[in-house]
Amino acid sequence: MAGSIITFLSDFGSSDWFVGVVHGVLQTIHPGAHVIDLSHDVPPGLIGRAAFVLEAAAPDFPAGTVHLVVVDPGVGTARRAIAVAARGQRFVGPDNGVLDWALADPRAQVRELTVSRFFRQPVSRTFHGRDVFAPVAAHLAAGVGLEELGPRVDDPVRIPTSRAERRDGEVTGRIVFVDRFGNLLTNVTEQDLSDAFPTTEPSRLQVMTFGRQIPGLSRSYGDAPVGAILALIGSSGRLEIAQVGGDASERLGLGVGDQVRVRIG
Amino acid sequence: MAGSIITFLSDFGSSDWFVGVVHGVLQTIHPGAHVIDLSHDVPPGLIGRAAFVLEAAAPDFPAGTVHLVVVDPGVGTARRAIAVAARGQRFVGPDNGVLDWALADPRAQVRELTVSRFFRQPVSRTFHGRDVFAPVAAHLAAGVGLEELGPRVDDPVRIPTSRAERRDGEVTGRIVFVDRFGNLLTNVTEQDLSDAFPTTEPSRLQVMTFGRQIPGLSRSYGDAPVGAILALIGSSGRLEIAQVGGDASERLGLGVGDQVRVRIG
Amino acid sequence: MAGSIITFLSDFGSSDWFVGVVHGVLQTIHPGAHVIDLSHDVPPGLIGRAAFVLEAAAPDFPAGTVHLVVVDPGVGTARRAIAVAARGQRFVGPDNGVLDWALADPRAQVRELTVSRFFRQPVSRTFHGRDVFAPVAAHLAAGVGLEELGPRVDDPVRIPTSRAERRDGEVTGRIVFVDRFGNLLTNVTEQDLSDAFPTTEPSRLQVMTFGRQIPGLSRSYGDAPVGAILALIGSSGRLEIAQVGGDASERLGLGVGDQVRVRIG
Repeated sequence: MAGSIITFLSDFGSSDWFVGVVHGVLQTIHPGAHVIDLSHDVPPGLIGRAAFVLEAAAPDFPAGTVHLVVVDPGVGTARRAIAVAARGQRFVGPDNGVLDWALADPRAQVRELTVSRFFRQPVSRTFHGRDVFAPVAAHLAAGVGLEELGPRVDDPVRIPTSRAERRDGEVTGRIVFVDRFGNLLTNVTEQDLSDAFPTTEPSRLQVMTFGRQIPGLSRSYGDAPVGAILALIGSSGRLEIAQVGGDASERLGLGVGDQVRVRIG
Repeated sequence: MAGSIITFLSDFGSSDWFVGVVHGVLQTIHPGAHVIDLSHDVPPGLIGRAAFVLEAAAPDFPAGTVHLVVVDPGVGTARRAIAVAARGQRFVGPDNGVLDWALADPRAQVRELTVSRFFRQPVSRTFHGRDVFAPVAAHLAAGVGLEELGPRVDDPVRIPTSRAERRDGEVTGRIVFVDRFGNLLTNVTEQDLSDAFPTTEPSRLQVMTFGRQIPGLSRSYGDAPVGAILALIGSSGRLEIAQVGGDASERLGLGVGDQVRVRIG
Repeated sequence: MAGSIITFLSDFGSSDWFVGVVHGVLQTIHPGAHVIDLSHDVPPGLIGRAAFVLEAAAPDFPAGTVHLVVVDPGVGTARRAIAVAARGQRFVGPDNGVLDWALADPRAQVRELTVSRFFRQPVSRTFHGRDVFAPVAAHLAAGVGLEELGPRVDDPVRIPTSRAERRDGEVTGRIVFVDRFGNLLTNVTEQDLSDAFPTTEPSRLQVMTFGRQIPGLSRSYGDAPVGAILALIGSSGRLEIAQVGGDASERLGLGVGDQVRVRIG
């Protein structure tokens, strides 16, 4: 897997030198490394959002890809640094749940990053993205084995996943992500709905959120007149609420954490 | 043209997973693909702005480059997906006018994307950037021929171009783009001015917009004191209105669509 | 050094075609060039900020790297265009101080860019990033020698560096950069402090800014409860003021230019 792609996801923003210096470290350790920026606009310290972006983007990368994820509000504290082999790919980041999608693989192998010859020296206490995670990602992409990085970790930090629930003939979930277009993504999956309502046409379901009732699941964003609010299964297999040609989050005043219910209409 | 560059232009923003997953698809289909992000900050659904960015950036790319353009408010509706060979390059995107610069080439060849073996499966109804356009761009860059993608299209959607007009000894045009620095780019070209005023020194022309008269064309942004408003032919060959060291759009309260007239001063 | 990395730093933003067209020029002149975007979100014309980003990111790039830096408010005026060989790397940009870190190397070699066969033709008066700097950077990365680019420059423009001062048993400096997280970076270096207070434990130093006294230097951002203000030596070796889990700049109302003093507490 030498020569693997390295992806890079962080909350570093695009105005500072943080992204640049990490690229420099990657190229110095692994000359010619093929690095792809996933996003650096995760809001500062929002581990859950970064975990979501990773989960949504990583499955489409080739086997062997190394995902470097640096959303690390606990840098310099006792939180561990880890690398994970899972789902045919590798992952490097802080042990704070940001790699949850990798850790959800029952065959995930996790190592703590303790072998300092794979670090940039000296290791600062404030920028492990540059000094620990990027160097290790570069070494992994260049062919170093996961088991060389440090001891096995059996209890990595997980993010408690909020899953949709079935109750009284309804599926109850929450908004978990608001995207660039204002679409409201929920933790209700297509599977949740087909399990709960196996014989019901999607067009006969009803989605409810804060008094508003959305009748039927649409098939695409263009299935109603501009300005209409609709519900549909989005490209990540989740129930979404959207406004045709508009921003549903702004229009409805809803955001992450707000409740959504689905029942037969 | 195997191994061609792929450029990637969209309205996906930089905070979500959309850009990342498209990169994953490109690398999976065409391992080692050389992908260059043009911009992902086209405002949501602004087809005309994306078309302008493409027209301004694409000519400087090498022959054979594949331009992947995803500004696709009609995803999931009946709008076609197309690929175009024109101007020595290739273009992939929705048939909504965003590829207008390619289509303006009289020798443009256009195909509808219907051959599903070039798609990512299953094809969602909400994210053709990932499922249709990116896979096809990757296949083109890897050597697939345009004619393999689907049937010929003879009536691709064009954007009606607003051109400057000559009337009563004046050239009348409009602001078509406001750039990062607040410069106001118009649809009046250097050619329009030399056609209309073949014997007039640029310094003797007068640019008028909403009561303000700007005397003479300057040669660069630094040709007047800080704060001054000036007109000049910008780097894309268009008449521009700028403020020295400032933001002309903000200062003058002008934006896309506003009228500009040029006459002999 | 053929095949070197090219980094690209500018104030072009990410919404226009400027970044894209520069990438096109680089690829046309040096096919397959390995280009890494450092940042394009330097605020328009802020030479000092770009110089800071370059200084912080460049040292971690491999020898031979070519840094293309385009923050060029004086484009089209008499300001020179230069290339610099220094610190084992190469630098291309306007002669306005943005390359100060390179020029601070006493062995720096500086050339004015006058040999027009290395330019994109025709050379506009408003976009030397595309027409002069990018082409020269591509040629350098492809193997052209610095001495071929034009005559030697002995008096490049420098940015007067504000250094911390010792006075009355105190070290006095200023805030020079506010990063994405609101951390306030100063021009007081770790070396300044160990020179001034060679026998004092960092925990016994006191940092003062506008009436607020911060006791002792912390070791990391996590060394105090959320919301606390602390001072520490950051990853670039500078004294920083930070808020645990927050934005110190906003909280304290401080920004670039504000004074900071350090004394024994």
